Amino acid sequence: MKLANLLVEGKKTIAVVDPERQQYWPVTELSDGFRGDMIQLVHDYDAIKSALLPKHDGRPLAGVTVLAPIDQPRRNIFCVGKNYHDHAEEFSKSGFDKSAQAGEHIPEAPVVFTKPASTVIGPGAKIPRHAAVTQQLDYEVEIGVVIGKAGRGIRKADALAHVFGYTLINDVTARDLQKLHRQWFLGKSLDGFCPMGPYLVTADELDPANIDVRCWVNGELRQSSNSRDLIFDIPTLIETISAGIELQPGDVIATGTPAGVGIGFNPPRFLQTGDVVRMEIPRVGILQNEVA
Amino acid sequence: MKLANLLVEGKKTIAVVDPERQQYWPVTELSDGFRGDMIQLVHDYDAIKSALLPKHDGRPLAGVTVLAPIDQPRRNIFCVGKNYHDHAEEFSKSGFDKSAQAGEHIPEAPVVFTKPASTVIGPGAKIPRHAAVTQQLDYEVEIGVVIGKAGRGIRKADALAHVFGYTLINDVTARDLQKLHRQWFLGKSLDGFCPMGPYLVTADELDPANIDVRCWVNGELRQSSNSRDLIFDIPTLIETISAGIELQPGDVIATGTPAGVGIGFNPPRFLQTGDVVRMEIPRVGILQNEVA
Repeated sequence: MKLANLLVEGKKTIAVVDPERQQYWPVTELSDGFRGDMIQLVHDYDAIKSALLPKHDGRPLAGVTVLAPIDQPRRNIFCVGKNYHDHAEEFSKSGFDKSAQAGEHIPEAPVVFTKPASTVIGPGAKIPRHAAVTQQLDYEVEIGVVIGKAGRGIRKADALAHVFGYTLINDVTARDLQKLHRQWFLGKSLDGFCPMGPYLVTADELDPANIDVRCWVNGELRQSSNSRDLIFDIPTLIETISAGIELQPGDVIATGTPAGVGIGFNPPRFLQTGDVVRMEIPRVGILQNEVA
Repeated sequence: MKLANLLVEGKKTIAVVDPERQQYWPVTELSDGFRGDMIQLVHDYDAIKSALLPKHDGRPLAGVTVLAPIDQPRRNIFCVGKNYHDHAEEFSKSGFDKSAQAGEHIPEAPVVFTKPASTVIGPGAKIPRHAAVTQQLDYEVEIGVVIGKAGRGIRKADALAHVFGYTLINDVTARDLQKLHRQWFLGKSLDGFCPMGPYLVTADELDPANIDVRCWVNGELRQSSNSRDLIFDIPTLIETISAGIELQPGDVIATGTPAGVGIGFNPPRFLQTGDVVRMEIPRVGILQNEVA
């Protein structure tokens, strides 16, 4: 099932969507009494999911604004760095990674940082250029994992039972700040630095060990990989993060980016005003944002 | 003015407190119609502060549980690392800082990471030992700055006008995880790793350039310093963080810890079950927590 957070006549509307037929069905109409945002739906899903199968035609998606599926995370998004082999190497070589020891390419354990909710923007929204703050704006296509079932000390073998679904995230990064401040938080967290969407796809629709991710800048393919190339796979990330932190429904984990980001080029190719970043995960859809 | 988040007969009660007289006054009684938590009070403060001066005797604080003043931050707490000269040196020498380049002691810019809301516990609550996850539990006494007025691109000279007040934070850290995962987030973010309190003191009561901080473990003085020894002072931290992130009322910034943490000793002195960590900032009060 594909779920969306829509803006319909000025009102946020959680909906089931069918992108092929270009239709949507508000959850409030499918399941009487549902109120709340996407995180509430994640909480309530097991109880109401049988009602979410539309039996009639939906409304046209055309003209409706698609917002980030989880546009107000309850806490910062958990983000993983250096989690594809080829990107870990390009990042180390770029000289922008001040958190690694000399000669260290592949991390021995997941590298985790966060982005606050204030970074989240939807498909089509502009990525703020922040020209007064950064001269080195970069893109990173990532699989976003949305937690469905709370848990601490989750074992790898049980981890996927805690996943509600998947979305697409652009982990926008100010490379100069990422480098200058050593810890990556500031360089990752400028307002608007987390385009997300378009849809939240329930876990049954994707095999987490085989998800394609691609990214184009101004029509040029820059990143193309698959979750099978992750250094630490999704169950491992859930095991690691939940070891000491109880994960909650609605928590989002951005799982890291493959090679092909701007600093992977020599010289680096940073984003400029007017550049269009287009990302795709099959079944999740296309996330496109222009740099303001 | 000193503000507290109290648990009175099972109900959270935001209150004005007088620790010397050991009395409290519920804000709902002083200001008719106030509803909400401490962050709501921070929002409403200018409008209702004249009503918050008690004209009659309060209720006895004895027997009332003091919770963390901001026990449910709306987003992760902003934390600053390596921000006292003596601690930056002890941390570098300890070998636990994998984010610094060889020979680098003093950071050239503030080092910022986060702790989620799920880390916050109140005075007297037990710090979870997390023995299955860490063998290197450490303490860090810090001044907590609470933002009162929203702003982005705040200049150093204007920064203090955005401060609502101050509290006391123990930035509990799992040193092994801090080191292993390179980025510090995981080692800083285990559930219960942010004792906070006891009180939130409004900005007029303290001079941010001259705040004493002290920490004892089992009665032995371990840390004793003053905010004048900060590498990056509080206005600089606000300028740096707000450059690209709009700060919001209720945001909390933990400003870094001075020398004397467990890894500052040779061999390191990590916290064990039963250890009592006691911290003090004059006017803010005493924050004491035992390791579970």
